[in-house]
Amino acid sequence: MNNPGLSGIYRDYIACLNRRDWQNLARFVSEEVVHNGRRFGLSGYLDMLIEDLEQIPDLHFSIQLLVCEPPHVAARLAFDCTPKDTFLGLGVNGRRVSFAENVFYRFQAGKIVEVWSIIDKAAIETQLER
Amino acid sequence: MNNPGLSGIYRDYIACLNRRDWQNLARFVSEEVVHNGRRFGLSGYLDMLIEDLEQIPDLHFSIQLLVCEPPHVAARLAFDCTPKDTFLGLGVNGRRVSFAENVFYRFQAGKIVEVWSIIDKAAIETQLER
Repeated sequence: MNNPGLSGIYRDYIACLNRRDWQNLARFVSEEVVHNGRRFGLSGYLDMLIEDLEQIPDLHFSIQLLVCEPPHVAARLAFDCTPKDTFLGLGVNGRRVSFAENVFYRFQAGKIVEVWSIIDKAAIETQLER
Repeated sequence: MNNPGLSGIYRDYIACLNRRDWQNLARFVSEEVVHNGRRFGLSGYLDMLIEDLEQIPDLHFSIQLLVCEPPHVAARLAFDCTPKDTFLGLGVNGRRVSFAENVFYRFQAGKIVEVWSIIDKAAIETQLER
């Protein structure tokens, strides 16, 4: 798979998330997907996304940086949203926060098989202290 | 600059940090470097590294994942170390902690001009709760 191809697949995956198009999630995410070392599988991955959206109804994934070297994609995602209650253990309680996620994906046969994600919790803490 | 070239430069940069070879830092880091949106410049960048090492004398940068698409490099760095006192506002106090940093770099003329870094603070918090 060439580089533009993998970038394109990744952009389509993000568009799928932003549409809440769960029926097509299996086009992008492997049945065997591992997230931060945990063997979620596709159903656990979908559960995680649904839980995120329950906590953050206005969640929107925005690609700020995309670095692609097959079989890996690295992305810096930007969020600007209003978590309802707690998020990452922080009492956000409907305040608007902006933060980033730096995340690596390994693809196999065009699907995500491994994810290593870090969300910038410290940035949210700083905004809540204001 | 081709892809293996940029990966090689990045690996040499990490080796430079692990040797505490500050005299050669300017080979890898631009005078105009910006870190997480702050215009550190080379001297501010060096100050940050020296402060990190003051807090964490046994700091060692280990590349777990490297994704390179010029002009960008994305790396997942792994750390296994013993911060002396506080680190990221957490009272680590000499305990051994393992954590990752997911970080993006933009290169220009072979030098780092922009860094977007997130350290996995939540992982450290989890280890301190044990």
